Amino acid sequence: MMHWLSDQNCLLEVGGSSAMDGRNIVAATFVDANEGILIATNPATGLPLAGDFFKSSSTEVASALRSATAAFRDYRKMNKDVKASFLNAIASEIEQISGPLVERASAESGLPLARLQGELGRTTGQLRLFANLVSEGSWVNAVIDTELPDRKPLARPDLRSMLVPIGPVVVFGASNFPLAFSVAGGDTASALAAGCPVIVKAHPGHYGTSALVGAAIVNAIKKTGMPKGIFSLLYDDGYSIGQCLVQHELTKAITFTGSYSGGMALIRLAQQRTEPIPVFAEMGSINPVVFLPEALEKSAGDLAKKYAASISLGAGQFCTNPGLLLGIQSPALEQFKRVLAASIADIPSATMLTKGIAENYKKLTTEVTQLEGVRLLSVSKNKDKSLQNQSEATVAEVNAIDFIQNPSLQEEVFGPYSMLVIARDISELMEVVAVLKGQLTVTIMASKPEVQQHQTLVDALSEKTGRIIFNGVPTGVEVCGAMQHGGPFPATNDSRFTSVGSAAINRFVRPLAYQDWEQELLPDELKDENPLEIFRTVNQKITKS
Amino acid sequence: MMHWLSDQNCLLEVGGSSAMDGRNIVAATFVDANEGILIATNPATGLPLAGDFFKSSSTEVASALRSATAAFRDYRKMNKDVKASFLNAIASEIEQISGPLVERASAESGLPLARLQGELGRTTGQLRLFANLVSEGSWVNAVIDTELPDRKPLARPDLRSMLVPIGPVVVFGASNFPLAFSVAGGDTASALAAGCPVIVKAHPGHYGTSALVGAAIVNAIKKTGMPKGIFSLLYDDGYSIGQCLVQHELTKAITFTGSYSGGMALIRLAQQRTEPIPVFAEMGSINPVVFLPEALEKSAGDLAKKYAASISLGAGQFCTNPGLLLGIQSPALEQFKRVLAASIADIPSATMLTKGIAENYKKLTTEVTQLEGVRLLSVSKNKDKSLQNQSEATVAEVNAIDFIQNPSLQEEVFGPYSMLVIARDISELMEVVAVLKGQLTVTIMASKPEVQQHQTLVDALSEKTGRIIFNGVPTGVEVCGAMQHGGPFPATNDSRFTSVGSAAINRFVRPLAYQDWEQELLPDELKDENPLEIFRTVNQKITKS
Repeated sequence: MMHWLSDQNCLLEVGGSSAMDGRNIVAATFVDANEGILIATNPATGLPLAGDFFKSSSTEVASALRSATAAFRDYRKMNKDVKASFLNAIASEIEQISGPLVERASAESGLPLARLQGELGRTTGQLRLFANLVSEGSWVNAVIDTELPDRKPLARPDLRSMLVPIGPVVVFGASNFPLAFSVAGGDTASALAAGCPVIVKAHPGHYGTSALVGAAIVNAIKKTGMPKGIFSLLYDDGYSIGQCLVQHELTKAITFTGSYSGGMALIRLAQQRTEPIPVFAEMGSINPVVFLPEALEKSAGDLAKKYAASISLGAGQFCTNPGLLLGIQSPALEQFKRVLAASIADIPSATMLTKGIAENYKKLTTEVTQLEGVRLLSVSKNKDKSLQNQSEATVAEVNAIDFIQNPSLQEEVFGPYSMLVIARDISELMEVVAVLKGQLTVTIMASKPEVQQHQTLVDALSEKTGRIIFNGVPTGVEVCGAMQHGGPFPATNDSRFTSVGSAAINRFVRPLAYQDWEQELLPDELKDENPLEIFRTVNQKITKS
Repeated sequence: MMHWLSDQNCLLEVGGSSAMDGRNIVAATFVDANEGILIATNPATGLPLAGDFFKSSSTEVASALRSATAAFRDYRKMNKDVKASFLNAIASEIEQISGPLVERASAESGLPLARLQGELGRTTGQLRLFANLVSEGSWVNAVIDTELPDRKPLARPDLRSMLVPIGPVVVFGASNFPLAFSVAGGDTASALAAGCPVIVKAHPGHYGTSALVGAAIVNAIKKTGMPKGIFSLLYDDGYSIGQCLVQHELTKAITFTGSYSGGMALIRLAQQRTEPIPVFAEMGSINPVVFLPEALEKSAGDLAKKYAASISLGAGQFCTNPGLLLGIQSPALEQFKRVLAASIADIPSATMLTKGIAENYKKLTTEVTQLEGVRLLSVSKNKDKSLQNQSEATVAEVNAIDFIQNPSLQEEVFGPYSMLVIARDISELMEVVAVLKGQLTVTIMASKPEVQQHQTLVDALSEKTGRIIFNGVPTGVEVCGAMQHGGPFPATNDSRFTSVGSAAINRFVRPLAYQDWEQELLPDELKDENPLEIFRTVNQKITKS
């Protein structure tokens, strides 16, 4: 990052100007738009970064969606291996620009290079995971019920169903994962895997990163001969393009990762549409961690250090940041508090993603510690004053009774912040759990006997979350089949779906049933001989034959 | 039915007064409400039927939802075989009152006894299908990704997910299936199977049928020891109870089958909630049937007779009624028209479900035939003038160009009605297909070579529908795993789900992921040894081991 700061033109030198074309991309083609020039900023210095980006207009929105709709007809019918090659090609194109891409992303986001190198691996890994899923083919959930011509009173027709894509998907990139949740992130990868065209609204926090990844996707489209309409990338520093995308009649789904207010604004806007469409908004979570006594008695100090690290990881800018620690008063909890306070005081400051995020973090941490019953426990003293937009890790504490009475204490403070809620006993702890809102994750730190003894607590916590962790930390979201990254409201607006892992593809498909079609006319997925050799449910049995 | 009409008290004699208790049911308990008395009417005679039913209030709504929420904690954790026994017990209880139930349903709906006997079989069949699904157990979609402690750069944790129920479901019964889509219909059966409590808002078209089935469910709850809060049944002849149910914070999902205006009103109301919840509204469809030339040339007359029967089946009161026939002008189409007109003229009238439905049918068929370019082709002359609310089967025709220009011709006319759209050629037929709205079903009548030749047409039709039928009729909705009864808007508001067939259970569940839980603490579905012997996806392989 520092290297980058010392020479703002290095990216253009490394990547070449074509690798950082700041024009909007409509149907895999760079287009001119004249709504104004946008500039990227380095949050650590406040200085502008290289590159002009161009604000788009409703013209580009309409053009992108028309092209996407037309391309959808061809793309959805493409052979699964061809689609898989395309996803793999995006991963390869990204790898080819990994050096300048990671540098640019670091300059724009303030995130360290090592973190972004890891995130790049996650991004290409996700693309290849979906390539494998598509290539293997069983994800289409083929269900076959063969005809029963002699059934009484009526014959049963031949019925076969499979998942088919729903159409153009609008992706709103997230600020906190400029690679893994942005232009070619999990939303884009899963939508393209499903067979849906994608229109990305670039996040204003990382225009250059978006441009580089957008160009990589364009290259992959060209190299694998995909219909060009399946990808567009639009820039805007305000709300108008986003609104236009959400309300356009050709948009068939929307994904968003960001704040509660941003997510709800999109949801309310989408509700004004004539045609209801699925909106997937991941809106933040405070990821409660419940410490039962035996866990603390065993290792209060180690747990405190572990949690100080989890709270401050990536400047706390994770949707799974543990923003709420919940324990029962005891000497062990006091020890946990002491070590946590000391550890937090030592956490080095880090550049936050944007000036807006840094200012909001400062405002919220100041406000929350002035609320009734809230006590400041520790603030990091390890701040780099030579840089702008630095986070100061902060922990506060509050008694359970005050927490229960003040719902605003459940609002997410995005950054390296957490609040310790102290209950008098297990029954007061249960009262706290009862008022908790929906979460992405809940963690239980406990011994096995404690869990067995407090099954009601575990059940109550399970109702509030999409993922429940035993003796771990919530940060770190594995990309796999069993991952559920989506919880009860307000963590997300639709807890039935995940935005991480292979099941994310299910957001963009619907079943289509074929009744009484002749073998030759059926899609390969549904033919008797199972030419694709996929798992299917045939007359209620899961089989490959 | 006539027997029933001759003695309005016979049901009370047959079933005993407890079998027709018209009080509201809250948490499986008959309760008094004082908002007014409701009376059921026989649509064929306009005369009142036996039984007083009691309008409920917001008190019963709140009580039902509180009880449901409390019962949910126990019910969702019940052993799968116990849940299956409960569903089977409902089926048995319904069979025990089948005589009086079918008679009462016939008297209230005007539907013939034979049809309702069939529908009763379908209803108990659905309950047993879900009992089998729950008992077999693989429906929970258990996904297991075991830990990889040595993975670089980070170890992979152990992650396991399964579907869990979302909470209390509000079911709005449909008028046209007083058994199969009502109190113990597919919505109730699939929600209870998922582990969700159900609150049914009784359809005002069949209070007595609702009361009888409600009592059967109460008996099944008692006999199998289920938590009483899992079932409530509320009466109302207006909108206030429905509104109250949709807006209550404890409601976690809503199902509705009915008109477009009714469905959209519920959707808009649900959108005003703070917490977004899934709404499943099946809102009607005109189920286009495309006749390609060879199909007509081969058997125009037979097809016309077959379609006259499908159009008028059950007085046309099916959501899959073929309300739009689409062909290319030719001598064979002229012959089809002649036979269709003659067949429709002979269709006997039938009692429609309610006075409101009969009046609306008369109004809409009169209005539509006065629209620009619309010609009346045939109206049934076979009307029973001794009975009220009789349907007259009606077919109209219109040229493609007029159809394309007038979107109101796509509005559903609920009843034995269809419109023949005549295109000049295949390209004009494609233009008609392009403007079609979303449908539950689309049917293609064609030879195999025709389908192969017109793949673009088939693709375009596939995008518009949830089920695509080859050389059949859309009426008749099989209850099986491959059935998709839900199509693109406005047929339903969420084409990703079905309201018929075993996949209907997916509407009421969400995935819950367990991270790093010890074996003993995991639900049986996710334990290594697979004690329930269900199919699971373990490290990306579908297996029972």
